[in-house]
Amino acid sequence: MVKGLDTLNEQQLIKEYFSDVGSAYLAKHDISVSVGDDAAVFASPAGKETVISIDTSIENVHFLKTMHASDIAYRSVSVALSDLAACGAVPSWFTLALSLNQIDEKWLSDFKVGLEDICNELQIPLIGGDTTKGSVSITVQVGGYIEKGKAITRSGAKVGDLIYVTGSIGEASSALDDFKKNSISTKINNRYTRPKIRFNLASKLIGIASSSIDISDGLFQDLDLICKASRVGAMVELKKVPTFLNQTFSVQEVNRGDDYEILFTSNKINKEKIHKISKEENIPITEIGKVSKGNELEIKTREGDLVKSSSGYQHF
Amino acid sequence: MVKGLDTLNEQQLIKEYFSDVGSAYLAKHDISVSVGDDAAVFASPAGKETVISIDTSIENVHFLKTMHASDIAYRSVSVALSDLAACGAVPSWFTLALSLNQIDEKWLSDFKVGLEDICNELQIPLIGGDTTKGSVSITVQVGGYIEKGKAITRSGAKVGDLIYVTGSIGEASSALDDFKKNSISTKINNRYTRPKIRFNLASKLIGIASSSIDISDGLFQDLDLICKASRVGAMVELKKVPTFLNQTFSVQEVNRGDDYEILFTSNKINKEKIHKISKEENIPITEIGKVSKGNELEIKTREGDLVKSSSGYQHF
Repeated sequence: MVKGLDTLNEQQLIKEYFSDVGSAYLAKHDISVSVGDDAAVFASPAGKETVISIDTSIENVHFLKTMHASDIAYRSVSVALSDLAACGAVPSWFTLALSLNQIDEKWLSDFKVGLEDICNELQIPLIGGDTTKGSVSITVQVGGYIEKGKAITRSGAKVGDLIYVTGSIGEASSALDDFKKNSISTKINNRYTRPKIRFNLASKLIGIASSSIDISDGLFQDLDLICKASRVGAMVELKKVPTFLNQTFSVQEVNRGDDYEILFTSNKINKEKIHKISKEENIPITEIGKVSKGNELEIKTREGDLVKSSSGYQHF
Repeated sequence: MVKGLDTLNEQQLIKEYFSDVGSAYLAKHDISVSVGDDAAVFASPAGKETVISIDTSIENVHFLKTMHASDIAYRSVSVALSDLAACGAVPSWFTLALSLNQIDEKWLSDFKVGLEDICNELQIPLIGGDTTKGSVSITVQVGGYIEKGKAITRSGAKVGDLIYVTGSIGEASSALDDFKKNSISTKINNRYTRPKIRFNLASKLIGIASSSIDISDGLFQDLDLICKASRVGAMVELKKVPTFLNQTFSVQEVNRGDDYEILFTSNKINKEKIHKISKEENIPITEIGKVSKGNELEIKTREGDLVKSSSGYQHF
């Protein structure tokens, strides 16, 4: 037996806090080797493609240090999963690379609870990871499946398509403002701390949405990514953008990001189908504008003026 | 068009430095959506299992800040790939989550060269990632394939199996010592800056090795992980451990880690096959000890004394 391990070492850390997170769902996803070996091993369902995405959440950039550790865990996995939803994929597993300054067993226990919460909600397991000593950062790689050739990308928007957004804009950034004001460790379920990802809704957009993206950096910034990838322009009517508590938001306020709603485009012939999906899922889907020729993203203000979009969250 | 982007933003960063890294190998690996969309999409070969692993490299912990950026990139991907090799898998793709304090275009250009080097060497593409502002850290998730049910894990070692190690021990840590002494930015290919992963050799160990692991934290520490996972003990003869430049190393020196060699166990009936693999691959494979009953890892010193192993690299 290796000696000298009077402090919690990496292996003990993994065993204590990560070895069984969501392990009830390993068999369901055909995962034969999971946490605790060199690599995870799984079989993909026949006829399906694997969809993966990776996202890093950094302390005081992507989450507040004062947030409850369970929310930090939940949010970090959730925002990574959001990219899968944007493609229409069904989630299957995730891995976790966690950097911590120190071992705080209370914090880790709470963190584990948040991981388990999202595992149970989506019936997916944690299948691998890495722990390192460093500034607090959480990198989550998520994987899922979709029928071959059906992934919704950013690049399929066509001139004339209508632009839609799920849910409402601004709830997450409002919740973040509240947090910053109170600046205490608290646990409140809201769209900032525990964004619910629209998986069911998103999977119904396969064959209907011509392009889609999740709103992380800001409605207009993310719409601009669709425009660039699809080589089109867009016009959004500000008054149509569904905002939190029906408040009237400025262009800047609408564009703060962290919404993790789905922004998508669709041919107008799908209007009724989209209305039906919205009713079935009990989630608002609002038409906010139209895809246009060119490469400009224009916003029609409440006063009827056309302005160019300002940028959303800048990473650097 | 989004305004206000007078500095390089995340999208420009991705386009400039990451959008085409290894893109020549996308089709080969059946990857239909790659860098620049919400998620990457790929099809797995029929009858094979997917093998994935994630590894974080942190500045001045896993690599020196003074290393050439191309080596930092190469090493970060390589050490992540090492876990795949330990399973016997063939690499297929990787994703990259990169945190940087600031945008340094020269550094990024060099970093890209290192990524391209390993992509070209292994004919694999970068298929997705995330860039964030924060302390410098590099998280790499790698994926590959193996025949169904054939992955070599840590848990299959049997009492009586012989213990083998590829290559030699200590080259990487010696190179690291040299670096620290010189403390200048330099580019030298060696097993610290550019560890070559033994993929060909490892894939030949399928059906031969009963368990395996890559040596990252230290020969004895990593062997102990095999022992724990396999519920066995082990006895290693220090004089048999192949060391760099045939130097005589102490237990502590042998256990410094960063070797990225493969440590494996195998039934003694495979002795000849292992000798043949070593010759074919022109890489030494050395028998260093034997799997024993119990749960203790013992080392026989040059003087013939039996000592308990000391621990290798401690993460926290």
